[in-house]
Amino acid sequence: MVVVLKQNPDPRQLENLIAWLKSMNLQIHLSEGDCYTVLGLVGDTSEVDIDLIQALDIVASVKRIQEPYKNANRKFHPDNTIITVGEAVFGDGSCPIAAGPCSVESEEQIIEIAKAVKASGAKLLRGGAFKPRTSPYAFQGMRAEGIKLLLEAKKATGLPIVSELMDISQLPLFEGVDIIQVGARNMQNFELLKELGKIDRPILLKRGLSNTLQELLMSAEYIMAGGNERVILCERGIRTFETATRNTLDLSAIPMLKSMTHLPVIVDPSHASGIAALVKPMAMAAAACGADGLIIEVHNDPAHAKCDGPQSLTPEAFDDVAKCVAKILPNSYKI
Amino acid sequence: MVVVLKQNPDPRQLENLIAWLKSMNLQIHLSEGDCYTVLGLVGDTSEVDIDLIQALDIVASVKRIQEPYKNANRKFHPDNTIITVGEAVFGDGSCPIAAGPCSVESEEQIIEIAKAVKASGAKLLRGGAFKPRTSPYAFQGMRAEGIKLLLEAKKATGLPIVSELMDISQLPLFEGVDIIQVGARNMQNFELLKELGKIDRPILLKRGLSNTLQELLMSAEYIMAGGNERVILCERGIRTFETATRNTLDLSAIPMLKSMTHLPVIVDPSHASGIAALVKPMAMAAAACGADGLIIEVHNDPAHAKCDGPQSLTPEAFDDVAKCVAKILPNSYKI
Amino acid sequence: MVVVLKQNPDPRQLENLIAWLKSMNLQIHLSEGDCYTVLGLVGDTSEVDIDLIQALDIVASVKRIQEPYKNANRKFHPDNTIITVGEAVFGDGSCPIAAGPCSVESEEQIIEIAKAVKASGAKLLRGGAFKPRTSPYAFQGMRAEGIKLLLEAKKATGLPIVSELMDISQLPLFEGVDIIQVGARNMQNFELLKELGKIDRPILLKRGLSNTLQELLMSAEYIMAGGNERVILCERGIRTFETATRNTLDLSAIPMLKSMTHLPVIVDPSHASGIAALVKPMAMAAAACGADGLIIEVHNDPAHAKCDGPQSLTPEAFDDVAKCVAKILPNSYKI
Amino acid sequence: MVVVLKQNPDPRQLENLIAWLKSMNLQIHLSEGDCYTVLGLVGDTSEVDIDLIQALDIVASVKRIQEPYKNANRKFHPDNTIITVGEAVFGDGSCPIAAGPCSVESEEQIIEIAKAVKASGAKLLRGGAFKPRTSPYAFQGMRAEGIKLLLEAKKATGLPIVSELMDISQLPLFEGVDIIQVGARNMQNFELLKELGKIDRPILLKRGLSNTLQELLMSAEYIMAGGNERVILCERGIRTFETATRNTLDLSAIPMLKSMTHLPVIVDPSHASGIAALVKPMAMAAAACGADGLIIEVHNDPAHAKCDGPQSLTPEAFDDVAKCVAKILPNSYKI
Repeated sequence: MVVVLKQNPDPRQLENLIAWLKSMNLQIHLSEGDCYTVLGLVGDTSEVDIDLIQALDIVASVKRIQEPYKNANRKFHPDNTIITVGEAVFGDGSCPIAAGPCSVESEEQIIEIAKAVKASGAKLLRGGAFKPRTSPYAFQGMRAEGIKLLLEAKKATGLPIVSELMDISQLPLFEGVDIIQVGARNMQNFELLKELGKIDRPILLKRGLSNTLQELLMSAEYIMAGGNERVILCERGIRTFETATRNTLDLSAIPMLKSMTHLPVIVDPSHASGIAALVKPMAMAAAACGADGLIIEVHNDPAHAKCDGPQSLTPEAFDDVAKCVAKILPNSYKI
Repeated sequence: MVVVLKQNPDPRQLENLIAWLKSMNLQIHLSEGDCYTVLGLVGDTSEVDIDLIQALDIVASVKRIQEPYKNANRKFHPDNTIITVGEAVFGDGSCPIAAGPCSVESEEQIIEIAKAVKASGAKLLRGGAFKPRTSPYAFQGMRAEGIKLLLEAKKATGLPIVSELMDISQLPLFEGVDIIQVGARNMQNFELLKELGKIDRPILLKRGLSNTLQELLMSAEYIMAGGNERVILCERGIRTFETATRNTLDLSAIPMLKSMTHLPVIVDPSHASGIAALVKPMAMAAAACGADGLIIEVHNDPAHAKCDGPQSLTPEAFDDVAKCVAKILPNSYKI
Repeated sequence: MVVVLKQNPDPRQLENLIAWLKSMNLQIHLSEGDCYTVLGLVGDTSEVDIDLIQALDIVASVKRIQEPYKNANRKFHPDNTIITVGEAVFGDGSCPIAAGPCSVESEEQIIEIAKAVKASGAKLLRGGAFKPRTSPYAFQGMRAEGIKLLLEAKKATGLPIVSELMDISQLPLFEGVDIIQVGARNMQNFELLKELGKIDRPILLKRGLSNTLQELLMSAEYIMAGGNERVILCERGIRTFETATRNTLDLSAIPMLKSMTHLPVIVDPSHASGIAALVKPMAMAAAACGADGLIIEVHNDPAHAKCDGPQSLTPEAFDDVAKCVAKILPNSYKI
Repeated sequence: MVVVLKQNPDPRQLENLIAWLKSMNLQIHLSEGDCYTVLGLVGDTSEVDIDLIQALDIVASVKRIQEPYKNANRKFHPDNTIITVGEAVFGDGSCPIAAGPCSVESEEQIIEIAKAVKASGAKLLRGGAFKPRTSPYAFQGMRAEGIKLLLEAKKATGLPIVSELMDISQLPLFEGVDIIQVGARNMQNFELLKELGKIDRPILLKRGLSNTLQELLMSAEYIMAGGNERVILCERGIRTFETATRNTLDLSAIPMLKSMTHLPVIVDPSHASGIAALVKPMAMAAAACGADGLIIEVHNDPAHAKCDGPQSLTPEAFDDVAKCVAKILPNSYKI
């Protein structure tokens, strides 16, 4: 950490600052220039509260050098974390696909889709029971009943299931859910993250629409600090000025995140663009640059899906995507 | 709502679409051009799920004309909603100030600050008990104990209090809190919004860091649809590419929102920039363009505040801000 | 085009508006709702100035349905435009690579790099002579001398060259340059675009850092409206809130643009991230989702490059990228 | 400047780096931590090319501490620069208004508007002769003829004029123009900025739609480095995800810029939102937080303006804005 002081800092305040920093077991290196005095802090600064220092009268700015995350940091855990759920392995260089409808709508629907995507090679069934919708007047999901139907589909096909939890109070219902998803809007719901740190189930943590990669890792750190180290990160598009696509899929996040962390990174090409026709090329691109998995919306009747129909694929279209991704994989980028 | 069809739509699918739209009590006006056929939907479309239409094969795009919010819409409620809490009145052309520390830290601290800001004219005491922090290693607030201390300060000064609720489970602790704040990161925590729609307390709803004004109004609509019509909107800075300030305060949101909705709109100049020196000019600018209130961080010892010190004012600096805002108000913009 | 009128429009103003629209050979379809009256305009609206209509007192908003670009529009030119420069073919499903240094620095440097990239399969030599630099104190390129050296390298290797023109006045110097590049900062330098519409050379038009895909196509339209139809579009990263990478490469722009236009779309993975280690995965991802070409920075001594060293590859690293891209190509997405 | 080295840097490379830095008259302070070695560079680093250092193998990152701009830096020029043009004084605490049409359309129009805005207190006449338009099919301005008409209006009213130059080749036509405007899209047209550094006329430099404050100051630095120190900065709205307004006016840029630089900072509330109804509140807010001037679009017949009608005020509405701004000014924020 580097602390830049204002011009001519009050010597007593400077002395106090240095004493305080030393009390945190940090070594201080002082460099004096014409316009600036700079303190270099050496030692473990990951738990130093940068705001406390920045608030001081004599401080112009503070720049972190060491990352503020530890458990998620590849520097301290050079090997990939590998997370296995059923036949899906995240982090070993394969790229398992979770597929299924945005919303569970009926037993027939979810079982039909589950069978179809399994036949096309999907290793997990995704399905929404609790749905975050911008409008209070839009369909909010089948909720508890939806989870029950997902478990039926799991029984019928053997596919492990992944579903989104929207609130801590829903946790008991998620007993049989194999991977618990934290949605983009909940990425910084810190109370929820703390609770998920206490359970023994993999967490699929989606990047918030306008969250940086470092913030995503800090949210993973919340879960890991609680003791749950099985976190799967998911890039799903960020909010930009572009309006042709719903969001902008940030594929450079894959290799970038993988250089920062040992956790697996998967991609959701369906939510990113909101356009079914872009799912295939974006899934292929994600596979090419090293994604550890994909999560794709599939609906047996997209035109009558209760939500997010425009971005859902038919089972036939999904089969084609899965095949095209499989052809890319042998030559994809490995980190 | 305007539905743009693709070139040469299948006539049977078109017939189905029109029948379905009519079943929702909408009148259909069809315009055929060379490249496009357009359906104009006339009637109440606020509860039509735009995604369902967009998913249809024959549809190129759908454009809303009517706003998707109703309870919050000024078109249907032309007069300003006025919300009174103690001596603070939001929406009547005055501009009450809520002031206080980012975090409650001790009984002495909160009572000292409460007395100081009251003396400077603040009408409400703000203070954080539950703190959303990016890092799991940063101070998370005094939590239940913090709420207790806020109530002590309320007793000591008579100032009503405003504090942030982070999770539904904390609601029982907020019994004596006069205004419940929903933080920016929770603006789209829909489960939380639904619960807040059931209670009889004003809600201070902060705009999410990357949420549009329409999304903010949709979140207000969640609360209002539940029966709680006392929602105070708060602009607190949005996330942009600029790095000189922490966020970019969007002051045009004030007159823009006030043209869209009848709800009061206040401004948080402290969180927006994250820089104490910008609080005063931004508070004055907010007052000038018609803000219905301000929420400002004040700390008796900013350099040792447990969070957000860099943006906190001393009581003396706050007194100056309050005076300067008061001088702007008689000539400020009214809508 | 759909014109939404305010509530209770003045009948005389409405009559005037309708008469004016009809004078532009547009048919008018009127739909009256409770809250809105909507005019549907049928006919060629691509040249209608949307601002003129939006300015009218009685108009609430105007929504375009037809795209405002014509020459660049795939609707009117369903087949891919194919642009051939030497052995490089853009738009036929291949993915030629232009490679070379950010800046030309010396005859030895540019010839050495040209030979190396040709050996690795590059079909074009890129090199900057005129360099747009944020700081007036940074190296501004070798300018006229740089162009001369590029022509030497072209003679020595047979590789066609691509270089950036920063101002109309430099055009005479670009006589021997095979593809003229318009940089991101000049994407909306309309006076420059008009001039480039008059010449008979392919133009490589880079997307501005914060320009939408539609704006990119409108800039292409400027060139094409002047008579030069050989425009190659280039995605090179957009400005977002993310700071881990310099810009955010928007790969969904490739299939999206290719659905909107018949022009070829290439990708610059070097400038997007500003990080050499991300060039390879992003080049592979771009190839996978259908890019019509790549433009990659290569330097024989990146650590001493006069600009943009951090994102440059060594010739050895480039050779690896070219090989990995070649392996992706046979299975890449085709539109 | 702080250079962060990778773990275990090669000792010979480190030695070379240190020698090279010392050759630039910089002192080096070395701090060694467990994970990082940090070099603090002391001395004048404003002309050090950060890219050259960042490109080195042994370097992890480089952080600037000293600003990269000098002539524009308030640290080296603590007093406000005051720029006087006719009766308009920028930078002395007053807030002169430049008003006029987006486009000059006819002699009658420009003279009528000039007289009206002068009567309302405007100190300058603005008017566009060369218009940057997104579409090649939109009205491009009266060009040379437009400048001639502006000069007529100047003669008729005595108001100095401000107009936008789009290309260096237009400079001879701008002989009689009192303030030359560089538009947002040309903020980083460095060839143009260099030329404007050579002339003796104040330059109104608009912030680019997605340019940071530091980049704006670097562009001012281009002009000042050439010898022309009379640069007026202008905030005119930045591009964000919000779609309710055309752009987002960043008013915190005013006090922030004024802390960074001694140059005057004015605001264009018309282009920022693109909505006439927002011009008044935003002009008042800008005045309240210390703007050194305003530039406002006024048209005698906005509904038939040839461009940007939706954001233009009538002369009557402008008169009201000027009066309301005048009432705010005595109590506005001063830096």
